[in-house]
Amino acid sequence: MKQALFPTPQDAEAAFYDALTKGDLDAMMAVWADDDDIYCVHPGGPRISGVAQVRESWRRILGGGQTLRFQLRGQQYLHSMMLSAHSIYEHISVAGETRTRNPVIATNIYLRTERGWRMVAHHASPAPVAVSEEPRRVTKTLH
Amino acid sequence: MKQALFPTPQDAEAAFYDALTKGDLDAMMAVWADDDDIYCVHPGGPRISGVAQVRESWRRILGGGQTLRFQLRGQQYLHSMMLSAHSIYEHISVAGETRTRNPVIATNIYLRTERGWRMVAHHASPAPVAVSEEPRRVTKTLH
Repeated sequence: MKQALFPTPQDAEAAFYDALTKGDLDAMMAVWADDDDIYCVHPGGPRISGVAQVRESWRRILGGGQTLRFQLRGQQYLHSMMLSAHSIYEHISVAGETRTRNPVIATNIYLRTERGWRMVAHHASPAPVAVSEEPRRVTKTLH
Repeated sequence: MKQALFPTPQDAEAAFYDALTKGDLDAMMAVWADDDDIYCVHPGGPRISGVAQVRESWRRILGGGQTLRFQLRGQQYLHSMMLSAHSIYEHISVAGETRTRNPVIATNIYLRTERGWRMVAHHASPAPVAVSEEPRRVTKTLH
């Protein structure tokens, strides 16, 4: 496993999505804290806890042989010294596929460890179609 | 609005679900930080940001006249000095309804403010039916 050290949560996040785009499971898992308290919720799925289960869930996703592309939008950060929470819209497309997929809303949480910032939680859920990630435009859909 | 001061994230969380059970919008909003960076994702919905929009979204839910009951299970905490993230399974039932609803997985994030711990994010998504919140039993569904 790579021993990358991420000086900021943003660095960890960039490495996470970069690894997903490349389908590189080891690089993706190197972003996560090596801790049984980590958890992951894939869109529509249950909560998966611990390194082994989180890894296995991603292995299945990345093992599908599809090349995933992530467009990230609407980032919103809640930051403290030791813990950082990012809300982000993932617009995922699959190489070779023409249909547009619904966006996914993710809450990514990072912990500052002695080995730099690491992901400790990824909670992803399907967002409605055609809803913008811009707060102002989301407002319009509510009234 | 009530000026409750929550000494721990757990106190804020208890007040949050207590207010939802009572359908008390003011008490529920008093748990949130008074900050435009707060955000809320209701199951299947878009991200809603800022105090006014978060309040409006809950007003619509609580204004339905239903009495909601929350059974909370499988709590998992990520805690730091200033920010705390809780993962929780919400088993929601509606008074007078017999059908069983799918559980909801929520990531609740709390910030330590000068006025105690306050909620800054609530990301809720529908979980599959019949999946337990016990990590060991979730494991079984993956293999």
